[in-house]
Amino acid sequence: MVIVMNEQATEDQIEKVIAALTQKGYDAHRSTGATRTVIGVVGLSKTPLDPREFEILPGVHEVVRISEPYKLAGRVFKPEDTVIRIRDVEIGGRAIVMMAGPCAVESEKQLDIIASSVSRYGARILRGGAYKPRTSPYTFQGLGEEGLRHLRTVADRYGLLVVTEVMDTSQVTEVAEYADILQVGARNMQNFNLLKDLGRRKTAVMLKRGLSATIQEWLLSAEYIMAGGNHNVIFCERGIRTFENYTRNTMDISAIPIIKKLSHLPIVADPSHGTGLRDKVIPMARAAVAAGADGIMVEVHHEPEAALSDGPQSIYPEQFAELMAQLRIIAPAIGRAI
Amino acid sequence: MVIVMNEQATEDQIEKVIAALTQKGYDAHRSTGATRTVIGVVGLSKTPLDPREFEILPGVHEVVRISEPYKLAGRVFKPEDTVIRIRDVEIGGRAIVMMAGPCAVESEKQLDIIASSVSRYGARILRGGAYKPRTSPYTFQGLGEEGLRHLRTVADRYGLLVVTEVMDTSQVTEVAEYADILQVGARNMQNFNLLKDLGRRKTAVMLKRGLSATIQEWLLSAEYIMAGGNHNVIFCERGIRTFENYTRNTMDISAIPIIKKLSHLPIVADPSHGTGLRDKVIPMARAAVAAGADGIMVEVHHEPEAALSDGPQSIYPEQFAELMAQLRIIAPAIGRAI
Amino acid sequence: MVIVMNEQATEDQIEKVIAALTQKGYDAHRSTGATRTVIGVVGLSKTPLDPREFEILPGVHEVVRISEPYKLAGRVFKPEDTVIRIRDVEIGGRAIVMMAGPCAVESEKQLDIIASSVSRYGARILRGGAYKPRTSPYTFQGLGEEGLRHLRTVADRYGLLVVTEVMDTSQVTEVAEYADILQVGARNMQNFNLLKDLGRRKTAVMLKRGLSATIQEWLLSAEYIMAGGNHNVIFCERGIRTFENYTRNTMDISAIPIIKKLSHLPIVADPSHGTGLRDKVIPMARAAVAAGADGIMVEVHHEPEAALSDGPQSIYPEQFAELMAQLRIIAPAIGRAI
Amino acid sequence: MVIVMNEQATEDQIEKVIAALTQKGYDAHRSTGATRTVIGVVGLSKTPLDPREFEILPGVHEVVRISEPYKLAGRVFKPEDTVIRIRDVEIGGRAIVMMAGPCAVESEKQLDIIASSVSRYGARILRGGAYKPRTSPYTFQGLGEEGLRHLRTVADRYGLLVVTEVMDTSQVTEVAEYADILQVGARNMQNFNLLKDLGRRKTAVMLKRGLSATIQEWLLSAEYIMAGGNHNVIFCERGIRTFENYTRNTMDISAIPIIKKLSHLPIVADPSHGTGLRDKVIPMARAAVAAGADGIMVEVHHEPEAALSDGPQSIYPEQFAELMAQLRIIAPAIGRAI
Repeated sequence: MVIVMNEQATEDQIEKVIAALTQKGYDAHRSTGATRTVIGVVGLSKTPLDPREFEILPGVHEVVRISEPYKLAGRVFKPEDTVIRIRDVEIGGRAIVMMAGPCAVESEKQLDIIASSVSRYGARILRGGAYKPRTSPYTFQGLGEEGLRHLRTVADRYGLLVVTEVMDTSQVTEVAEYADILQVGARNMQNFNLLKDLGRRKTAVMLKRGLSATIQEWLLSAEYIMAGGNHNVIFCERGIRTFENYTRNTMDISAIPIIKKLSHLPIVADPSHGTGLRDKVIPMARAAVAAGADGIMVEVHHEPEAALSDGPQSIYPEQFAELMAQLRIIAPAIGRAI
Repeated sequence: MVIVMNEQATEDQIEKVIAALTQKGYDAHRSTGATRTVIGVVGLSKTPLDPREFEILPGVHEVVRISEPYKLAGRVFKPEDTVIRIRDVEIGGRAIVMMAGPCAVESEKQLDIIASSVSRYGARILRGGAYKPRTSPYTFQGLGEEGLRHLRTVADRYGLLVVTEVMDTSQVTEVAEYADILQVGARNMQNFNLLKDLGRRKTAVMLKRGLSATIQEWLLSAEYIMAGGNHNVIFCERGIRTFENYTRNTMDISAIPIIKKLSHLPIVADPSHGTGLRDKVIPMARAAVAAGADGIMVEVHHEPEAALSDGPQSIYPEQFAELMAQLRIIAPAIGRAI
Repeated sequence: MVIVMNEQATEDQIEKVIAALTQKGYDAHRSTGATRTVIGVVGLSKTPLDPREFEILPGVHEVVRISEPYKLAGRVFKPEDTVIRIRDVEIGGRAIVMMAGPCAVESEKQLDIIASSVSRYGARILRGGAYKPRTSPYTFQGLGEEGLRHLRTVADRYGLLVVTEVMDTSQVTEVAEYADILQVGARNMQNFNLLKDLGRRKTAVMLKRGLSATIQEWLLSAEYIMAGGNHNVIFCERGIRTFENYTRNTMDISAIPIIKKLSHLPIVADPSHGTGLRDKVIPMARAAVAAGADGIMVEVHHEPEAALSDGPQSIYPEQFAELMAQLRIIAPAIGRAI
Repeated sequence: MVIVMNEQATEDQIEKVIAALTQKGYDAHRSTGATRTVIGVVGLSKTPLDPREFEILPGVHEVVRISEPYKLAGRVFKPEDTVIRIRDVEIGGRAIVMMAGPCAVESEKQLDIIASSVSRYGARILRGGAYKPRTSPYTFQGLGEEGLRHLRTVADRYGLLVVTEVMDTSQVTEVAEYADILQVGARNMQNFNLLKDLGRRKTAVMLKRGLSATIQEWLLSAEYIMAGGNHNVIFCERGIRTFENYTRNTMDISAIPIIKKLSHLPIVADPSHGTGLRDKVIPMARAAVAAGADGIMVEVHHEPEAALSDGPQSIYPEQFAELMAQLRIIAPAIGRAI
């Protein structure tokens, strides 16, 4: 942190700032310029600093944060890429990992039809919602534990892993019994009690970006999980909310290379929620891989017009096959395989 | 809902759309224009309609939602204003209600000093966080149950009500023992499990607007609580996230008259979080009242520079007194008192 | 500017940064901390510094801007409020100034009816568009010079000033012949050629905030005009673009106290464009005055349903009278009159 | 347009709406449902309809726009792709077109060094600013006509086309003498006088998306140019303004497939302005091509640390070569060449 004093700041004001820093266990490094004084804050105390606490002290012009507030999630802490291995699947390795399945689990039969296709075309992870967060209380809320059982049964049948959402601390134990990867939804990215609970477990977590979350807040949410001891965190970019309303959300493809630079954790992209429109899913999946994503999560349904949830953004199994073919051409451009 | 067909839509396509509607229990009203056919959807079936399900049918140009997806929260359902009475305090009545207190409860003594001032100047409700949602896992997370006890003790001493945040379903029973109003924080506005839990209780709920929540989503979150049977919901505008970063958030003052029009429920404003800057709190509190807010929630601290959380946005007790004086002039302009 | 070096920055890298600063005519003030080196940049050279030029130098961790990039528009340059006097009207003085009139000038008769009412109720400035910026090329584009003549004639008849929009450098001379205040529309806030042209004149300029302009960019656009010698600039907050689409724009009321703090120039608010909805205009006008605005610009039309442009956001003359009555109650709360 | 009446709308109110439509030259198609009446508007009158004019009529619940307000720019008007041919270069054809060069023209020598490299690596169009729109009046504003001369001379030397910005109607004739493609900058996307002027010429126009422009507004700005007779319009996605401030703008990659669907005009992407960060330019250029862009415009500088403008977002010539190699792998995935 750097504290910049006003040009008119008095000696007394400067000393009070330094005293406040010392009291919180930090070293203050003063440098007096021709026109103003700048105070560098060094050392790492147990008391975190809120820059705004200093901004309101008399004589202070501006306070500037220097170091990132996250540690475990950052590349500074761990320069090499984290590869998360779950049975025979690696996330964050050389191969791009495909996660596919319906928005919501509707029945074992539905799931079997879809899993059978997507596994044949190259998906390694089966997605599907058993507990569904829905904006309206009057819409389908998911099959619950029955859905979880279907996911496990069908995934095992085709040698797939399972990723599914957990919405609340009360569900974590149950969902963790069935799933290989626990998904934290966009609306829960800052449900800190849920993040802390997941941090005390070993199951991998896929952390979706909140609709209005900055990249730094997203990293801090990963930090919540990691601070509890669980370092198996996968980011998932799924679009942010902007003024543009042609698409459901605006997919922030640039977040992919940014996360790859700032963090060692893997990142996947979800073009189904990122766009909300079937015919935009494939171009955006290609874009995400071209930008460096470690995987793609995509909603696939054999009868999207009859889907209980999000049918319009689900692609057909044959479109998934077509996407795989295109990604196999693109991946080598950046030294990846699929 | 109105379904607009393409100019080139075939008779077969039109009939398939009508069949899909009928199957879901709706009446379809067809009107054939010179250039295209428009299908009006009437009736209210138990199966809610997702417009996107129809947008993807062949021959469909556009689907337009007509009626609001919320019911209990809307003025159509209940035209007269809801007034929430808790002991001798009315929220949503003629008098504007002031809620004041520290961001976080730090000690009984701190709380007593602040409560003593704000109650003297006219506050009716004591605010203060016992469980604090914090972006970083390394910052002060609140005193927990000890904080709740302080809130209750001090509030009773000065004849105040208590409003405090509940972050998770696991905390609701405990917090409800101490508080008169349970606050749902902005980051939890779409924590649907929490909303459902609160809907099964009788304690009033103050529902903060999410950082990127549309007004319609906010109304739907209130609907979640009301659908469970708890109709004591108070909205709280606290700023949305925009590109402007001079302020912490952009307070959407226009949400106040909009909510007053669309819903019968009361709405208060929180200029402390809405701006994040002490010297903007008072002007924005005035603006909120001038725009029609039923109350103001404001952070007050006698020593903001020593506060454990959000000191820079807390006003001094004397500033609170000054604000009260100004609001007493403004309220009559819109037929209110304070 | 403060340049923060990496913890691993070499002596050579530090020296290169200092050399780059010196070469551009700045003094570099080096301070070596326990973990890293911070370089303060002092002095004011003729070559402005782009922080990003230094961010890309090897060994640099972060570059932090300290001083505001605007000068003439800032309170540091001129601490006391600027009051713009045009004939017997003062903008930025103790009295709140009302600007009212139709969105577009349609005929002399229409303008006379409206001007007659609003002047009677207390407006001092007549607004009305002669050249209209329209999103679609197929909508009414304004009466042009004929509209300007009507504005002047009618305003003189009722002792009002004229404010009207100028869209392009080619129109400035013509519009300046008829108008007392030249309005720069939101879409032109960064039309730098237009700003430079206006800077070379003496006529007052009302500078609307761009739909996605930060407060700092807005101040810099004022700086463009002032740098040319014209210091008669009035800011006008008219809403920014956000994700919320219930209103046409989100009016940023907090911009009012912020501008009043950062700049000495007056600021008015335009709740007609700020909300786009008639029944929100009055509450938002009240809010703007309560927050400290120096004036209100509002669209008034006696037959809004027949207006050629923006009828739905125009209020009726009687509503304008009602607004005036409310503002007369509110203004004294902040030491203002109307 | 479809006008949905209130459930309580009276016969009289319905008839007044129909009368208002008829008066404006439209046919009204009435359909009376069980609960409400819906009025379809058919025909195309010369008077465009503002939906808000009808929303304010008594008894109207909602007005819904059906057909797009643009015509010439839409695929409905012209289903096949527009290919713009300038000498031997095709924009919008099978080959992806590369535009490269410095942000600002600084000297003929600088331009020659850069043009020599990028033409060797495969660029077909030389970019460079002679007139620069700058947020601050105190920064480098471009070389003006001297810069234009350098562009033409150097481009001809290497067989390249020239694309450069025109900021104001007063500059169009001059810039058109030197350039093959006239660029309209993001801040000028709704400078309607400039758009109309360009519409009366034959030179191709590259229309950058405004920072807060919706896709529909962007299409309407193209419509302004085309309505004047100039159909040679190229869209350029360069990032929109969002809450995320790690990048300068958020590049909206999804705009690429959306524009390709809604319009027949070509679209290119500018990852330099889209991200503002050198190390994000290459991943985002790859993403844009993978999403279907017809071309890429990129800032290249041999000495970015000495550039007078935007050095930090310029890539080195060798990075441009590397990008070309990657794009050659990606293009065939979507049936394109480079």
